[in-house]
Parts: sequence; structure tokens; C-alpha cells
Amino acid sequence: MHIRVINPNTTSAMTETIGTAARRIAAAGTRITATQPASGPVSIEGHFDEVVSAVGVAEEVIAGEQGEDPVDAYIVACFGDPGLLAARELTRAPVIGIAEAAFHMATLVSTRFSIVTTLGRTGIIAEHLLENYGFRHHCRRVRAAEIPVLDLEDKPEAALERLVAECRRAKEEDNIGAIVLGCGGMADLTARLTDEVGLPVIEGVTAAIKLAEALVGLGLGTSKHGDLAFPRPKTFTGRFEGLSNLGASD
Amino acid sequence: MHIRVINPNTTSAMTETIGTAARRIAAAGTRITATQPASGPVSIEGHFDEVVSAVGVAEEVIAGEQGEDPVDAYIVACFGDPGLLAARELTRAPVIGIAEAAFHMATLVSTRFSIVTTLGRTGIIAEHLLENYGFRHHCRRVRAAEIPVLDLEDKPEAALERLVAECRRAKEEDNIGAIVLGCGGMADLTARLTDEVGLPVIEGVTAAIKLAEALVGLGLGTSKHGDLAFPRPKTFTGRFEGLSNLGASD
Amino acid sequence: MHIRVINPNTTSAMTETIGTAARRIAAAGTRITATQPASGPVSIEGHFDEVVSAVGVAEEVIAGEQGEDPVDAYIVACFGDPGLLAARELTRAPVIGIAEAAFHMATLVSTRFSIVTTLGRTGIIAEHLLENYGFRHHCRRVRAAEIPVLDLEDKPEAALERLVAECRRAKEEDNIGAIVLGCGGMADLTARLTDEVGLPVIEGVTAAIKLAEALVGLGLGTSKHGDLAFPRPKTFTGRFEGLSNLGASD
Amino acid sequence: MHIRVINPNTTSAMTETIGTAARRIAAAGTRITATQPASGPVSIEGHFDEVVSAVGVAEEVIAGEQGEDPVDAYIVACFGDPGLLAARELTRAPVIGIAEAAFHMATLVSTRFSIVTTLGRTGIIAEHLLENYGFRHHCRRVRAAEIPVLDLEDKPEAALERLVAECRRAKEEDNIGAIVLGCGGMADLTARLTDEVGLPVIEGVTAAIKLAEALVGLGLGTSKHGDLAFPRPKTFTGRFEGLSNLGASD
Amino acid sequence: MHIRVINPNTTSAMTETIGTAARRIAAAGTRITATQPASGPVSIEGHFDEVVSAVGVAEEVIAGEQGEDPVDAYIVACFGDPGLLAARELTRAPVIGIAEAAFHMATLVSTRFSIVTTLGRTGIIAEHLLENYGFRHHCRRVRAAEIPVLDLEDKPEAALERLVAECRRAKEEDNIGAIVLGCGGMADLTARLTDEVGLPVIEGVTAAIKLAEALVGLGLGTSKHGDLAFPRPKTFTGRFEGLSNLGASD
Amino acid sequence: MHIRVINPNTTSAMTETIGTAARRIAAAGTRITATQPASGPVSIEGHFDEVVSAVGVAEEVIAGEQGEDPVDAYIVACFGDPGLLAARELTRAPVIGIAEAAFHMATLVSTRFSIVTTLGRTGIIAEHLLENYGFRHHCRRVRAAEIPVLDLEDKPEAALERLVAECRRAKEEDNIGAIVLGCGGMADLTARLTDEVGLPVIEGVTAAIKLAEALVGLGLGTSKHGDLAFPRPKTFTGRFEGLSNLGASD
Repeated sequence: MHIRVINPNTTSAMTETIGTAARRIAAAGTRITATQPASGPVSIEGHFDEVVSAVGVAEEVIAGEQGEDPVDAYIVACFGDPGLLAARELTRAPVIGIAEAAFHMATLVSTRFSIVTTLGRTGIIAEHLLENYGFRHHCRRVRAAEIPVLDLEDKPEAALERLVAECRRAKEEDNIGAIVLGCGGMADLTARLTDEVGLPVIEGVTAAIKLAEALVGLGLGTSKHGDLAFPRPKTFTGRFEGLSNLGASD
Repeated sequence: MHIRVINPNTTSAMTETIGTAARRIAAAGTRITATQPASGPVSIEGHFDEVVSAVGVAEEVIAGEQGEDPVDAYIVACFGDPGLLAARELTRAPVIGIAEAAFHMATLVSTRFSIVTTLGRTGIIAEHLLENYGFRHHCRRVRAAEIPVLDLEDKPEAALERLVAECRRAKEEDNIGAIVLGCGGMADLTARLTDEVGLPVIEGVTAAIKLAEALVGLGLGTSKHGDLAFPRPKTFTGRFEGLSNLGASD
Repeated sequence: MHIRVINPNTTSAMTETIGTAARRIAAAGTRITATQPASGPVSIEGHFDEVVSAVGVAEEVIAGEQGEDPVDAYIVACFGDPGLLAARELTRAPVIGIAEAAFHMATLVSTRFSIVTTLGRTGIIAEHLLENYGFRHHCRRVRAAEIPVLDLEDKPEAALERLVAECRRAKEEDNIGAIVLGCGGMADLTARLTDEVGLPVIEGVTAAIKLAEALVGLGLGTSKHGDLAFPRPKTFTGRFEGLSNLGASD
Repeated sequence: MHIRVINPNTTSAMTETIGTAARRIAAAGTRITATQPASGPVSIEGHFDEVVSAVGVAEEVIAGEQGEDPVDAYIVACFGDPGLLAARELTRAPVIGIAEAAFHMATLVSTRFSIVTTLGRTGIIAEHLLENYGFRHHCRRVRAAEIPVLDLEDKPEAALERLVAECRRAKEEDNIGAIVLGCGGMADLTARLTDEVGLPVIEGVTAAIKLAEALVGLGLGTSKHGDLAFPRPKTFTGRFEGLSNLGASD
Repeated sequence: MHIRVINPNTTSAMTETIGTAARRIAAAGTRITATQPASGPVSIEGHFDEVVSAVGVAEEVIAGEQGEDPVDAYIVACFGDPGLLAARELTRAPVIGIAEAAFHMATLVSTRFSIVTTLGRTGIIAEHLLENYGFRHHCRRVRAAEIPVLDLEDKPEAALERLVAECRRAKEEDNIGAIVLGCGGMADLTARLTDEVGLPVIEGVTAAIKLAEALVGLGLGTSKHGDLAFPRPKTFTGRFEGLSNLGASD
Repeated sequence: MHIRVINPNTTSAMTETIGTAARRIAAAGTRITATQPASGPVSIEGHFDEVVSAVGVAEEVIAGEQGEDPVDAYIVACFGDPGLLAARELTRAPVIGIAEAAFHMATLVSTRFSIVTTLGRTGIIAEHLLENYGFRHHCRRVRAAEIPVLDLEDKPEAALERLVAECRRAKEEDNIGAIVLGCGGMADLTARLTDEVGLPVIEGVTAAIKLAEALVGLGLGTSKHGDLAFPRPKTFTGRFEGLSNLGASD
């Protein structure tokens, strides 16, 4: 099984962190390839960053579909799940966002959870996802450790310390059973956070890998009946010309 | 990995059907054991049946915990997820209901789904679960093929025919991308239904096996912090005396 | 009119407390009988306790239906309303849970209320009931006085003191008009709590008695049209064999 | 116990119908007085009628409070519950609307119900009440028999026939367990409708009488702590001058 | 364009404040007339006040419709939007409440807002409106500065000081992007509050004027198809006799 | 006042249609400029089209901000409101989506509305917006006339005919007071549809223009406090390099 993990930002160190975490958790028969868009923001910390990254996500799925190394499932490895539904339109393979993956897993091991994310301003993105996915009432609180995303790469120890502190506050104050980490860049911190905090700490990249393996194992892919069918073929203009007349291969 | 599939009813033919479907879908390293309560209803077609079966589910988890063959995850293989939260209190292992498993998977491959269940009177159970789990708005309609549960074992061809017809109506009328099958006894029909109906047909037993493998692979188990902690040790009287003073082993 | 109050746990002192409170509030023409299951937990402080007690509740309704002293209405006297829908399937009489009874009454005398319950871990049960019954937005907060249920019998003065303190905090902090007591074992404390706290304090056992009298007075019983119809007759195995082939008498 | 039933419209024949239905259902110790505003619409079939009638309701409560015949509970006997919260501010007694009363009772005997009301244009009023009270998901459908309100008095047989037909459609098509009648003027038709339709038919006037008896029996009245406290005393001008400086008597 | 601003209370100083604020914000071609009911409360600080004022609002709309100076749009200038749907029934012109106006505008410039209102007891009115209009989740918190409404006229500086303080707390604590002012009497304070607090402060009277201009500009008026059609003509009795047999003029 | 209308697709005929409709509705002092992205899909009929168009929307806002002709408000003129929150981050000016504009206006003139859109597959986009904006319960039904977007330009009469037919069905079957048109390309059809159908037909481009004028008139712009603050300056790579280090000018 070949899972393609798409880091929606263009920081290759983070792509590597994510890829490594994905490989560590993958089953024996699962092969991970980690990619990132050729163009886009080096981190995603708001709606504008997200909108640009979503095109990159879509293009990486198109590349995966047109490539010679068939992809069995795609992961969108940013906590805002940018471009998720667009990506699903582009393939018969399952496509999983790391936010939804973490939420699903959290509800299976706890009755209520909190999210600990990077910056306060991204909290609204998590809130909107909770509402859209149906988990508004399962999440007690969205917390921010106020860490810029790239500090997870650049100042990992300081970042970890802040995360531990925020997770402990969540555990003490929020009446919860689990914590969801709100950034793909935290993929390698889960074990240490779980140890330090003492309740299930759920991270989306790893959760998504296992969900992808699950769906592929079930023979389930994105439904092509209804509103996730392949895009209607049409002309794209300008620098997006290359996206013209995509569509189902069969 | 050892997954224990608990058929909450006491019809061994159905336990076998479920166990076989589970084994067929399980990963190479996964061992399935399928059990059923010593006592309880031969099928679950309403709240009363469900309440009695929930005790059997809990006792099967206790047996699993006390047995010599350590269990890594439990599946509750009836679409009403009877006794799910109770079962979670009793173990550190993950416990997954087949209704929730199917719902989670359905939302990953479609934007909206319908449920096709056995009897109209069990529809309310599905509705309540959708509300509790957060999927009320992801499900367009709960449909019943009006098949008594045991007919799935006794008159499989007639049952399949009715299911195909109802699933086709769902596909044509409900504006959906996927169908969730609403009974554990349909575990072996998924492939044929998918073929006949032409959109993703999601069945809970198989979905739950893969979710269990996913959680175990992630090292995630039921949170023992908060309201799913082990039951407070206490006296049970009468024929439930054996349930007295359960609790965490550490 | 004969109202059967079922204490779902097996502590006879609590059955007596509940029965006494019920009798004190009952109308002149109302006769109260208070029962408890032959088997089950001595207190209900979590999902597992609740699941076992639900069978006891169902069996007490069956006993009521088969007994020589016709029952006009049943009360399920534990705040989690264990086995409520199952109990409704088993009889044409109304069946009322004390949590729902208290919620209904609270919304008739205030716009917003808080719940004060025993242990924090049972809060999730109240939250789920609020959601299922439609009262999520009418309840500001679920509070726990952190009193083990049986302390209400064993250390009543200490328990009362903690309850008064928690109720006062609710009054001061929660922007509410009423308080709902979250345990059947508090049935005899209502008057004193109301006095001490100074706003309507609503307790479920007494509320349920009056609702039962109301329904019987209206000639209303559990609908046998649709999903609360009598259970489909079927075989139960093992120690539940006696539950086989129940059903409507007409 | 003295229950004052306020018919919010000014058709005395309907006040009589309502009063008679109330007396028929009242307990032995309950005395019913039925009143109507001195001024207002002869029937309530929309928002404008409702707004005018709400003043009448409030004034009838004030009259009740200032009268020599102390009132233990008030009923607002129009299905839109006009002026309900205002009425509650004006008294320590419980005040119950017939729509809320019917909804509460319906959820106690069924899992889902439909409403059968008079005119389609009043359906929105029922929808708003369902939302405000928390019962949106318990009601499957709001149906109208398209009967002008006063036809219930003037052409009772024709009205009954249309109601029976609409109730039967609800029973067959709506997947429900009970029907709520959506007009105070139907108070005397409940028995015949129940007979003809064959499932619990719940009518608000009678339901409210029994709920009022229940609340009075419990010693519960409208909370004067918080937002239902007596109105802040102030000047009213013009023809409403008489409403100036109302307030708590203690 | 002629916009009629109806101050639902009978304090002419407040009518003037509101009218002045309305004129200041109105477009060049917009003419504002500000009225108040002949009869009613001098301020609106609860449900009872609101119910009485709603009749005044309806009568002012009727007067507007029957007057010689055709009205193009009506504003209901009290934050509880009293009588809004009734007023809509009475005219083809648009009718806008200042609470809804403020909420709509707030969601266009922020993702989440808080309300700062006068008295705590009116908070429930704002909560109910948020629910009915669909903005429950867009509003983080309803706050009260605990200022009696008429103090806005009588002690403006003290009132402003309290408002500034409460708005600042909202900004610091509530994780919001905008503040909605919860009283028509604050119409002239918006500019100073915006300056002092440093985020968008939205006031309903001014918001409603601009929305009214927008609707009139679009040629949109209250729908007369469906449940906002003109009231069914009928008899009103007593002092409301003059309301008899209203209805569409065409 | 200068309003910039951004047609998110790259069909200049549609940009012209939209611009013309905007100019026709604009107030005397309002100047309209209509633009479209340099690159992107010629029509937007699904999630993938939308994701690509969102970048174009953002870039058009950036161009507006950096241009020599200051923009007072932006309109995003595609019914999915693509890139709306991203666009808001990029400017202090108000940014309005045509779907939200139409929804807001519809709730001001009716209690319930239906949407008539182009293709069934875009219905899910409307559903998601309704949920996010809070209007889920105000919309009875999302209908599709099954017209490809560009047919609105290419075969206008045939398209109009289908729209009229679908709108009439909505009027007859949906129990509504207004209809929202679900495509920016219908901007010039509103008058004729209103005439033919006979209830308020609300179109988003025109609605958004008037809302934009309203917000600018109020001095309200996108909140820069909180989660719509200017994007954090950062590096964008590749063909998006030009987006690097945007941010507030003050």
C-alpha cells in the first residue's frame, strides 16, 4: 500500500518531520511518500495561507494520480485540512485530513476532548472544522500555546515546553479525557507529550495514516457518486492552464 | 494483535458470520476471536433487547480482561452499539461500536450518506446514535428494508434482494454518496451490495476491525482519565454478585 | 392510582428514602409502591453500573405488568434514566425517568438552570441526557459536589453541607433561575436545599410522581404505535431465559 | 387549588369550550376559572393577532394577582403560548403554555411526534416554539388541516372530519408515535380523535391543567431569581398607564 | 426614501436620540421620521415591557401604512426586536429589528462577537434572538454593563464609562473580533466606544437604517407569500376594536 | 464609494454580466469596478474549481489594496463565497460573499426560503455555507435546475425557462416566503424571475452591493482584532513568491 502524505506548506524540514512520523507508525506493508507543493507558504497560520496551500494540495493529488507510482491513499497534513473536498474530487483513492483524523480517533477513546494548537488566530479554523464534521459538542475547548508554526522546527525544546504546559492546563481545567494536537508539525512530539501529560494525546498525521490503511484495507475510496465525483472537465486559464480538462480516467 | 469481536446477541450462526467477515478483513498480524454472551436475546430489534444485550457485552469485556489471552481491542458488533460506554469503562483497550465505525468511515468517503437497516422500529436507535456521535446532518435518511434480523441468517437470498432494492432507492432518491448498512448480520453482504448498487456500501463490523487495528497501531486506548475511568469498585447483589469490586488492575 | 417507583440500585435504604419522598408528594388518591431489582449494583456511578441496573429496571416493569396489583405508571428513580426506553416498550403505562422529569419541570419555572450532581464522572451522563431530550441550551452547567452516592445515606449532614455550598455557587455564578438535583438519593433534601439556597430546587423523584399523576389523569400512556411498541417476541437464552416471548397481551 | 385558564382570544364560546375541557380533566381538589381578555382578537391566526393577545394575557395575570380569589397557577390557552414569559414575570405562581405542555407530554409517551394545527400560516409559530423549547428534533412534521380557528366552534363536525383525515395521514406517513393538536379550540376533540386515529393524541389545555397541578403539588412556582423576576417598576403611558409600577408585593 | 424609525418605548428623549443617530447615518436621499407609541412603557427591560411595547410597534406600523406620508421601510428600535414578525405581517415594506441588524453586520466583519447590553435580566432576550436568527455560535458571550436603560439618557457620562469598561473586558477576555451594543439608547455612543475600545463596535439603529436602505434599493419588501401575508381580517374587541379587519389594500 | 466586484471565474462575459447588474443596482455615489482573476477556471462547479478560484480572489484583493484606485469594499461574486475569510484577512475594507449576502437579505423578508442553484453537485457547497453562517434552519431546501454555469451566458432563454420552472416548484412545494438564486451568473435574471414566480427572488450580487454600501456607510470594515487580522508576513515559494511578506500597511 502506498500512502502519499502531502505537507501543504513548503518547508521541507517539516515535510521530513511529517514523513518520518508517518513511516514510524505505518504498517509493515505500507510505503509512505511525503511531498510538498512546489509553490506556497512556508507555514500555514491563517485563512490566506490556507487558501494558497489548498491549490498546492490539489496539484499534489493530481501529480499523484498522473504519476507512475500509483497512490492508494492521500493525507492532507495540515490541521486545517486545506483543500480536502477538492482533493477528494480528484481521485478514487481515500483522502484524509489530519484534523478530521484526530477528531475521529479522539471520540473513540474519550467522551470529550480539547485541542491544543499553535497560534490563537488559527483557533477559528479548528472551530469551523469541528462544526462541519459534527464534533462541536465533543470538544470542550480550543487552546493555543501561542507558538509560531516554524518554531516547532526551529526551537523544538522551547515549543515542547509550552505545549506540555498548555496540555497540562487542559487536563486540569477542561473536564476531558483526551487532547488533540492542532498542528502537523507536532507529529513527532506525541509520545513525549503523552508521557508528560498522562492522558491520550492524539496527533493527526499518525491518526490519518492508520485511517488511510483502514480505508484501503476495506476497499473503500472516495465516492464518485454524487458531489465528490470527478470535476467537470473545463478550461482553466493563465498559469492554471495545466488544470484544464481534468477528469475521471474511466 | 488480538481483536475480540463481541456479537451482543446469542445466535451463534450470526457470531460465526460476523467472525468470518472479521477474519476476512483483518490484517495479516491480526487474530480475531468472536464471542457472544452466555445469556441474552437471539436478536436485537429494540430497546429492551438492547438493554439485556448490553450486560452481555460488558461481561464479555470483563471475561476478556480476566482471560489468559490478552485482548488488544474489542468490537461491539450490533448496530445499536449496546453497552459501548460501559464496555469502555472496563478496559484500557479501545472498544469500538459498529455503528460508530460505519459512520466515521462514511464521512471520510462521502459528504452525505443514508442508513439502510433491518426493521423500521430500530430506526430510532440509529437516529439517537447519529445525534450523540455528531453525525445527524451527515445522514440524509434512515431507511428500513423491513427484514427481521434472523432472516439475514435464515433466508439470506430474500433478505439480500430486499436490501438491494432499498439501497437502490436510497441511491436514487436521497442525494447521497454512500450507504451505511444498519445491522451486524449484514457483514458478509457488503461486497455484493457494493457491486449491485454502485456506490460505497459501508458495513460496521469490517469498519470496526480496521479502526481497531488503527487505534492499536497508534498505541491509543480508552482514556482512563475522566469519565471513562474504571468503574468505582462496589458491591453488586444477586445474580450480578460476580461483578462486585471490579476495577483497574493498577 | 398506583405508581410504582423503581429504584434502579439495590440499596434498600435508598429505596426507602425514595419511596418516602414519593409518598409525601403523592396526591390523595395515589398509592406508591417502591421496589428495587433483586440483583444489581448498590449505587450507580457510571456507565457500567447503569447498564447492569437497566436490566433490573426492565425486569421490575415486567414484574409490575405480570403482578396482581396493576400499575398505572412507573418511575425510574436514578438520574441517568437507565433503561427508560426499554421500560417503555414493556408496558402501555407511562414510564418516567427522574432526570427528564426534573428537566421538564425546570424549564417551566425558569429560562436557564444548572444541575448539581454527585460525582464529576457522572456529569457526562447528564450531558448526554440533556442532548437527547433537547435541553442542552437550557442547562448552563453540570456541577458535581463530589459526593459518592451512598454518602447521601451514610453521611447525610456532610453531604447536605456540600450540596448547599455547590448550589450556592451555582446560584451566584451561573446566571440561572433554578437548580436541578442530579441524584435520586437527594429526594428528601429538596425542601432544605430550597430554603438554604433561595431559588427553585427541583428534584426528579418528586417531579416524576407528579408527572405520572398528570399523564394518568390525561389517560395518556406509552404509545404502542411505532418504535415503543411491545418487544418482538423472541427467545432469550441462559439466565435471561425468563424474558423470552414477552409481548403485548392484546 | 385554583387554576386560572386564560383564553387569549375574545371569543367567549371558545373560552367556554376550553373551560369545560379543563374542568373535565381537573383533579377533585382543583377549581378552574376560565377568563379571556376584555379586548383583543376573536381568534389568533398569525403574529399580529398574537402580539395583541399577549397584552391581554398579561393583563389577565395581573388581574389574577390583584383579585380576591388567589390563583395557584395560570394556563395560557393558545397554541402559540402568547405572552408566556411576560406572564411569568408577573407572578410567583407557575404559568404554563398549552403548546409547551403538549410538547412535554408528547415526549414522555413517544420518541417522535407530529403537530396537526389549524392553518398553514400558523405553522411557523409552532416551528419557532419547538426550536425555543428544545423539541425541534422530536417533532417530525408540522401539519395544517387548513381550518380557520373559529370553524372549530362554528362547524365542529366538518372541522373534526378534516382533523381526523390529517391525523391519519400523519400516522401513516410521519413515522411517529403521537400527535399534538395545535389549537386550544380542539380541547374537546381529543377523545374522539384518539379513538378515530389510534395513537396518543395530545391536546395542550388538558395537558397544561395536569402540569399545573403537578407544579403546584411540588410547591414549585416561577423563579423570581434571575430573568423572570418581577418587572422593574416603571411608568407606562397612555392607555397602558394602569400597568405602571407593578412589581412584587413582597 | 422614507424610513420610519419606531422607538418601541415612550420616552421621547430616547426617540430623539435614536432619530438623530438615524439621520446622521442616513444616505442623502433618505428621509427619517422617528415615532414612538402613544401608549406603553418608558423603557423596555424585560418580557412584560416588551409585550406591551409590541402592540405599540404594530400600531405605529399600521399608522404608517394608513398615513399620508408613504413609508418605504420600518425600523423597530429596541434590542429585543419586539413585535417584529407582527409588524412584517402588516406591510409590504421591509421591517428590520435593530438586534437582527446588528447581528447581521457583526458577522460580516468578524468571525465571533460579544454583546454588551444594559441589564443582566435582558440577556435572556438576546440569547433567544441569537437562537432564533441562527447566530448562537457566532456570539461568544452576552455581557451586561448593569445600566438601567434610562440612565443612558439621564446619566450619559457614567453610563458611557461603564460601557467602555465592559467592552474592554469583552475585547480582552472573549476571543472576539467585534462588539454588538445591546440597546437602542446607545445609538449615539458608537463612535466614542469604537475609539475607546479599538475594534468594530456595532450598533443596531444605524445598522438597521443602512439595511433598510439596502432592501429598498433592491426592491425587496416583506414577502406576502406564506406566513408573513397580511393578517386575516377579523374582529378585535374592546379598546383594540380599531384593529379590526385590517388587511392588504390590494 | 468604490466597490470592487470580483468574479472568481475567468469568463469575462460573466464578469460583464455581474458588473452590469452591480452598476444597475448601485447607489448614485457608488462606483463599481468588476474584475476577474488572471488565471483560473472559466466556471465554478465544484470544490476543486472553488479552491483554485479562491487564490484568484485573494490576489484580486491584494491587487485592489496595492492599486492606485482605493477600494472601499469587495464583493466575492460566486455563490460558494470562495476565499472569503482569506480575502478578509487581506484588507481593512469589508468583503462580502454573494451567498451570505443573499441569505441575510432573505431572512429579513421571509421566515423560510429555498435556494435554486445550477447543478445538483454544487448543492453541498450551499449546505455547508448555510451551516457555517447559521441559516441551516431558515432554508427549507436546496434545489438545482441542472443548468451548467456557462449555459447562463450561452443559452440564456433555455436557462431562464428551467429556472422559472424550478422556482415555481419551490414556491408550490416548499412552504417558503422567498427564493435565493444560487449563482452569480443569474444576477441579471432577478427581475424577470420575480415577475414570473410571484414572491421575493433574492440574488446575491445585487444584495452584496447594497450590503457593501451599508457597511461602508456605517464606517465598518473587517475587524483587524483577532482572527481576521492581516496575515502573518512570511515567505511564499515558487510561483506564489509574489505573495511573500504581505501584511498591514500600518
